[in-house]
Amino acid sequence: MKDDKLPVFDHEKGQLLKGGWELMSRRHPFLELMGVTVEPTEDNNVLIRFPMRDNLCGHPGMHILQGGVVSCMIDILGGAVASWHQIKDIQDRPVEEQLKRMGTVRTLDMRVDYLRPGKGQEFTVTGSVLRDGKKVLVIRMELKNEEQSLIATGIGTFLVA
Amino acid sequence: MKDDKLPVFDHEKGQLLKGGWELMSRRHPFLELMGVTVEPTEDNNVLIRFPMRDNLCGHPGMHILQGGVVSCMIDILGGAVASWHQIKDIQDRPVEEQLKRMGTVRTLDMRVDYLRPGKGQEFTVTGSVLRDGKKVLVIRMELKNEEQSLIATGIGTFLVA
Amino acid sequence: MKDDKLPVFDHEKGQLLKGGWELMSRRHPFLELMGVTVEPTEDNNVLIRFPMRDNLCGHPGMHILQGGVVSCMIDILGGAVASWHQIKDIQDRPVEEQLKRMGTVRTLDMRVDYLRPGKGQEFTVTGSVLRDGKKVLVIRMELKNEEQSLIATGIGTFLVA
Amino acid sequence: MKDDKLPVFDHEKGQLLKGGWELMSRRHPFLELMGVTVEPTEDNNVLIRFPMRDNLCGHPGMHILQGGVVSCMIDILGGAVASWHQIKDIQDRPVEEQLKRMGTVRTLDMRVDYLRPGKGQEFTVTGSVLRDGKKVLVIRMELKNEEQSLIATGIGTFLVA
Repeated sequence: MKDDKLPVFDHEKGQLLKGGWELMSRRHPFLELMGVTVEPTEDNNVLIRFPMRDNLCGHPGMHILQGGVVSCMIDILGGAVASWHQIKDIQDRPVEEQLKRMGTVRTLDMRVDYLRPGKGQEFTVTGSVLRDGKKVLVIRMELKNEEQSLIATGIGTFLVA
Repeated sequence: MKDDKLPVFDHEKGQLLKGGWELMSRRHPFLELMGVTVEPTEDNNVLIRFPMRDNLCGHPGMHILQGGVVSCMIDILGGAVASWHQIKDIQDRPVEEQLKRMGTVRTLDMRVDYLRPGKGQEFTVTGSVLRDGKKVLVIRMELKNEEQSLIATGIGTFLVA
Repeated sequence: MKDDKLPVFDHEKGQLLKGGWELMSRRHPFLELMGVTVEPTEDNNVLIRFPMRDNLCGHPGMHILQGGVVSCMIDILGGAVASWHQIKDIQDRPVEEQLKRMGTVRTLDMRVDYLRPGKGQEFTVTGSVLRDGKKVLVIRMELKNEEQSLIATGIGTFLVA
Repeated sequence: MKDDKLPVFDHEKGQLLKGGWELMSRRHPFLELMGVTVEPTEDNNVLIRFPMRDNLCGHPGMHILQGGVVSCMIDILGGAVASWHQIKDIQDRPVEEQLKRMGTVRTLDMRVDYLRPGKGQEFTVTGSVLRDGKKVLVIRMELKNEEQSLIATGIGTFLVA
């Protein structure tokens, strides 16, 4: 079905999406699987948040995030910041236009540095745009726990045109 | 409990683990969540395999792996290759010794290049050791679909001492 | 002067350049400084070559390439492969057209892995295109000495449109 | 000669080196070639500085730093910060001890992001330690021109034990 591919209709809520933000903050299947929520920040950006869970850990009983979870979350946030950066200034435009613009975002590459073991109860990943080009964004990401301890940092390049 | 932290006893199977390989190939909670299996290769290395699933996709109905899944899987395989590299030559030693050695592996950093959209039915990630040092391993990773199309490549640095 | 910026005229040789290859293989000031030559390869690609020199070493008397030399050379080769990739199929077109196309190449980011100390008498850097897109190239680079020992590997993303 | 390899004696100045800082700030052959000086910062760190020069440019008359110069300078600064980090707290110890400790620093890998064209009259590269481990340092580097415009950023992993 067409609305499967262009998700202007939210099957979960049974209602039409009004804009890119509504789409971004909806927990799609993979975000659901990982327990991730997307939230707005005070400076008109986005962050993601997720709680510690047994099945995000490499070893049972260790309560340290598996490395793959760390890179995954940094990747997700990078994509979210890039997508939001593309549509935040056109929130008054039709949702189809916003979706089209989000659809141009492609992650080219990413580096992750694992600085500390992933211990904590709740984690947030935030990002900032280092290069704001017409064709390319470079975004720096940081994963912290609830004590604001920096667990990992990332930097990624995103094609936006 | 102690055996939670040092998993010599496999609660799932109700039996003692005999070696590092048995531990590696056991699907721990996060691998279970992602649908990943670890398998031996013909050249005494390891690979991971996972099937396409709706909840590994960024958008419902698109059937393209979410970017976070790609980086996550490359990260998992890198860690698996590094761990196996550390214990493959001591498979006749006590499992505790193997576990201790696996426990020294730390991912320092990783780069992922997303080369093609993550389309396919089944994916494998393989890796090879570029630098085989006493303190550090550098491992190159490749994620392919069932048609051997190269979807993403990674390179990571692992501390092993 | 105009011909300073668009180097169709080769002041060194006192003659007009005929194509992109002629431009690429000309040793411009920085390549001169580093002692680098650009050469064609059998498979219609380019490589760079440079001899060991005292002033490419970090410590006098050590005869190991300074790390900065390694990253510099890998960067130079990556740019050369990207540039050549853009013009190799239009060698029969006017040099201005080739120059224009070379001029669109921008290095976005690069990773270098330093695998072995930079010992040797003569070094070559070669590269291959991993992603051959309309907008982006991903190129892998390798620096070897005259014994074909792999000293460093790189991977870079280049914008070409 | 032995003092060629362990440079406690400064042939240029014809005097004994008193400590690591004196060694670091001495312009060895490659730094001389590139026109680089190493300087202390107010917060007990180091930076490097170099002026624009024709032979640091990719194209004559363009006055934009060649990409290889950018990566080279970021690499040099990363190594300098790592080295200084290892010896700054033992400046009262014998120079041989400081040299020995500096000698353990190995660059493992580095990423450079080229954010803006390298235009300017004078450039500085500064760095800060993101991960301060017993075995590994992770350092972030920034290359700016005299107007403090951020031209490139880097992140590198250094083995120190």
